[in-house]
Amino acid sequence: MNTQRWKMVVEYDGQPFHGWQRQPDNEMTVQGIIEKALVGFCQQPIPIQCAGRTDAGVHARGQVFHVDLPIRARDLSGFETMKAINAHMHPQPIAILSAEKVAPDFHARYHAVNKLYTYRILRRSGPPTTEAGRMWHHRRDLDVDAMRKAALHLMGTHDFTTFRDTECQAKSPIKTLDRLDIETKDWGYGATEILVHVEGRSFLHHQVRNMVGSLSYVGDGKWQPDDMKTALEARDRREGGPTAPAEGLCLVRVDY
Amino acid sequence: MNTQRWKMVVEYDGQPFHGWQRQPDNEMTVQGIIEKALVGFCQQPIPIQCAGRTDAGVHARGQVFHVDLPIRARDLSGFETMKAINAHMHPQPIAILSAEKVAPDFHARYHAVNKLYTYRILRRSGPPTTEAGRMWHHRRDLDVDAMRKAALHLMGTHDFTTFRDTECQAKSPIKTLDRLDIETKDWGYGATEILVHVEGRSFLHHQVRNMVGSLSYVGDGKWQPDDMKTALEARDRREGGPTAPAEGLCLVRVDY
Repeated sequence: MNTQRWKMVVEYDGQPFHGWQRQPDNEMTVQGIIEKALVGFCQQPIPIQCAGRTDAGVHARGQVFHVDLPIRARDLSGFETMKAINAHMHPQPIAILSAEKVAPDFHARYHAVNKLYTYRILRRSGPPTTEAGRMWHHRRDLDVDAMRKAALHLMGTHDFTTFRDTECQAKSPIKTLDRLDIETKDWGYGATEILVHVEGRSFLHHQVRNMVGSLSYVGDGKWQPDDMKTALEARDRREGGPTAPAEGLCLVRVDY
Repeated sequence: MNTQRWKMVVEYDGQPFHGWQRQPDNEMTVQGIIEKALVGFCQQPIPIQCAGRTDAGVHARGQVFHVDLPIRARDLSGFETMKAINAHMHPQPIAILSAEKVAPDFHARYHAVNKLYTYRILRRSGPPTTEAGRMWHHRRDLDVDAMRKAALHLMGTHDFTTFRDTECQAKSPIKTLDRLDIETKDWGYGATEILVHVEGRSFLHHQVRNMVGSLSYVGDGKWQPDDMKTALEARDRREGGPTAPAEGLCLVRVDY
């Protein structure tokens, strides 16, 4: 069968899903829903390959996957293809944002050169309401300047074993962190939204959430900024801070 | 019983609620949940009065209400009061953002001098995902410049009968619109968020949603910008555009 490789950008709300990866006993995964929609679109099962799997509860504004679709008698545009697949996903909170034809050797994961994740924290007494499930609620004050100082220790190429989940399957714990910026937005009434922007070519399992959890220790005053360097150099998960909750994390963009 | 009047600012996600107003046969209203929390806090039923009732599905970032709370042996600060009431509201998506003591004649509704509502539209092919229930999904292109031209006809003091719900109980249809700005945000992949900011002292029932629905006619090209003036001057609801869905609307701020 003749096929055409497509690159698609997809947005989703992670809340109702058990993560990206298809599971044999559970259809409520992002991959499972998209592949089911593709069956509706193509009348055949077709696997998809994403840039970076997201955990249960993690959101995406710009996840990318590739897929080989059968070539039709009438050639469909990217817009028509996207629209048809989205119709098959209704009412799940998953939306294809763009679909374009790519070369047959394009690979969503191996060809990615950069990923941007943003982690959102809501710093105030009252819980999130309209943003419930999309921000980590932090009741106590956070010293953002101290967090920024601590973040500098993580920049560059390091052995990130301290921030690596024990179930991580990556061959090497050496990764390069190209950006770790902390932005703040004033929500009024003493509330602050804290956005941690993290960029790099690839990450270890739970690396972003473990770095954010450790940054929260610095913000809370449990750690001094230099304790981040000590933790990093220990190369021991037990020396790192907690894993920040999934709900604050979003895969914003993948670059090729 | 000695009481102290309080002014409280409250945020909520309108999705699970049948609007603001308490209903005898349904506890799932914003007022109902807050008053139930106050019973938990004060061990007695105490009514609250808001600045402007919101319909089912409408959100608030800065609704205001006043309430007379019994004076306690130990005086509680605004922060302590807010925190205690929020604890009684868990896990409903309602959060008191601030609580302050005010003069006994302060009135949340009558003393409001300005209200800011923002209506959010998502203009793209695919449905909202993380923002589902908080934006109006509009698939077709919208001519925002034409919408801005049409909006100018609504500014100032007019008889807004064309944009007034038939069940509106206001004594007069004459209102003054002090602001109607349309902001756009580029979401990438050809998607645009359109924010309609509306300010005035008070509004008729459904006035903002009816104005936004009429603006969408202009954006769609069904109406020319000057048709807004014709519709306004007709003083007839049947000459107005449709009522935009509740989910896009948010009461952002009330000024005193």
